[in-house]
Amino acid sequence: MQPHTTSQLATPALLVDLDALNGNLRTMSLRHNGAKLRPHTKAHKCTQLANLQLQYGHKTFTCATPREIIGMAAAGVGEDLLLANEVVDRDRLNSLAKVSEKVRVTVAVDSNATIIAAASAGLRDVLIDVNVGLKRCGVAPQLAGQLADFARKQKITVRGVMGYEGHLMMIDSRDKRKLGVAESMRLLAQAATDVGGEIISAGGTGTFDLHDETCINELQAGSYALMDTHYAKLGLPFAQSCFVLGTVISTSQDWLVVDVGLKSLGMDHGNPTVDGFEVLFCSDEHTTLVPSKESASTKVSVGDKLRVVPAHIDPTMAMHELAYLVRGDEIIDSWSIDLRGW
Amino acid sequence: MQPHTTSQLATPALLVDLDALNGNLRTMSLRHNGAKLRPHTKAHKCTQLANLQLQYGHKTFTCATPREIIGMAAAGVGEDLLLANEVVDRDRLNSLAKVSEKVRVTVAVDSNATIIAAASAGLRDVLIDVNVGLKRCGVAPQLAGQLADFARKQKITVRGVMGYEGHLMMIDSRDKRKLGVAESMRLLAQAATDVGGEIISAGGTGTFDLHDETCINELQAGSYALMDTHYAKLGLPFAQSCFVLGTVISTSQDWLVVDVGLKSLGMDHGNPTVDGFEVLFCSDEHTTLVPSKESASTKVSVGDKLRVVPAHIDPTMAMHELAYLVRGDEIIDSWSIDLRGW
Repeated sequence: MQPHTTSQLATPALLVDLDALNGNLRTMSLRHNGAKLRPHTKAHKCTQLANLQLQYGHKTFTCATPREIIGMAAAGVGEDLLLANEVVDRDRLNSLAKVSEKVRVTVAVDSNATIIAAASAGLRDVLIDVNVGLKRCGVAPQLAGQLADFARKQKITVRGVMGYEGHLMMIDSRDKRKLGVAESMRLLAQAATDVGGEIISAGGTGTFDLHDETCINELQAGSYALMDTHYAKLGLPFAQSCFVLGTVISTSQDWLVVDVGLKSLGMDHGNPTVDGFEVLFCSDEHTTLVPSKESASTKVSVGDKLRVVPAHIDPTMAMHELAYLVRGDEIIDSWSIDLRGW
Repeated sequence: MQPHTTSQLATPALLVDLDALNGNLRTMSLRHNGAKLRPHTKAHKCTQLANLQLQYGHKTFTCATPREIIGMAAAGVGEDLLLANEVVDRDRLNSLAKVSEKVRVTVAVDSNATIIAAASAGLRDVLIDVNVGLKRCGVAPQLAGQLADFARKQKITVRGVMGYEGHLMMIDSRDKRKLGVAESMRLLAQAATDVGGEIISAGGTGTFDLHDETCINELQAGSYALMDTHYAKLGLPFAQSCFVLGTVISTSQDWLVVDVGLKSLGMDHGNPTVDGFEVLFCSDEHTTLVPSKESASTKVSVGDKLRVVPAHIDPTMAMHELAYLVRGDEIIDSWSIDLRGW
């Protein structure tokens, strides 16, 4: 039987509040319309959610894994897919090359090895991934130009540069974040001059409104659609639209247990939160809660449903097979989380 | 093409060292043979691994989710399956009742509500789940007897008690752990007397050798098979047999990046470890490493493979579809992680 309300759902179950999601997509598309936003699918891993982003005017997408690119192409969502990640696996690159016969596929490269791997597979479009301060992928800015030259010698089209300022996303002070972004983007701007091409891609949800005066012409952001408690700390104009629904399975005098555990929650940013409760700890299949002072008089019984808010949305989505679209407690639809894996 | 060596694997890929796994299963079965061990499937979520545990003489199994029970029954592994968890969802309980026509299924209960839910679905065997100190599920010890009476009034067979001393698993000092176990098991012993039945089930990998003088007649342990860096701290006689293989996708002067990120690693116990390197941080699809002092002269290139050791094995397994069985770098077989989900 198809469930009509959240009270009928077996748990843990992923809920997406459709109105909140639409609000977030609208807010972002008003700030960065069309190709100025390249939504990141890694934050939701769901082609149906990506298709909604497309309806808000964004036809270019960012992906983090080959499977995300392949899944987006298979679903026919987007006309310009960027793999903002380095890949050297031959089979996967061959699969991407095959996909690139149907839809434009661009891959990030930051070394001769990644360029040779892409060229050998028959991929034709790359961005030079530039390190702008995050200790992760990306060529040093001053070497970006010669890497682009090397790529062009392999008969590869260098569409421009990308540089993710991930080390700045969680700086509390907006002013400090803005200063950091300006500094990182000066590095990217110089690299862009050396590299050539039309694309200068960077950014994320935490810096979505700090690029007015930077060099970039497209923003990569993903978490803004569903949000999490980590990003919520920054006071961004995006609402929490994703929850993991749990059932209270045990109560005692001093605490209660809900059947949402760390196998259904991204835990790298810490414990989730539950409105009206304090989270004591998470285990594999459980979260132990105590009522907060304000809700100490609330009676909670076995069988009651509670909404758990993840601390990190991206890995949370990757743990679920399905998302239920809800308006209040009414279930409107369900979406497959079909881009999971690598 | 079927990969023959780990160097051919697309990554991240889960590796299980077959000799180390067999060693762990042998060590545990020598200590707790046959039904004295009720291996926990939640730690590996793999019926083929459970089948190997069965070959070491264990025919009774512990599960944490209905899907684990249903999957074990479908695979025909085990003849006595315990759901060591509370469930009130009607559809799932109905599914378990159906399974119980083929294989003995026992569910944990800790309240009138969970007993009524089990009875309504037609389940006939329960254990009284007793709280022995972990702030999670389980009835207070002094109320266990009357809960058993209530269950028997519902025409349910009460097979005994279980009580998980999870709050003690990670106490560094073995002596202190042993004292704690003795105290918790005194609570369980009193409850067992009040409840009746033949089963007294408790324990885990961290307390596997601390029950010689306690009341229990079966040990629930799961992590011992594959292990993780968290349990390794206790100095147990079990070897690390599970790794997440990654490919180096980017190098710079000061660090390198492997394509194993927090979407392929259980992160609630912190960062993973990599032999010869220091882990700086994990992102969704990456881990950034710096060589440790001892291996500073080791040359690492893009395309090289590294083994990442998870901090927590249970959620790590739940993130992967497949495990490759290896002996050194040779791939012997692959197993489906077929018990994922709820």
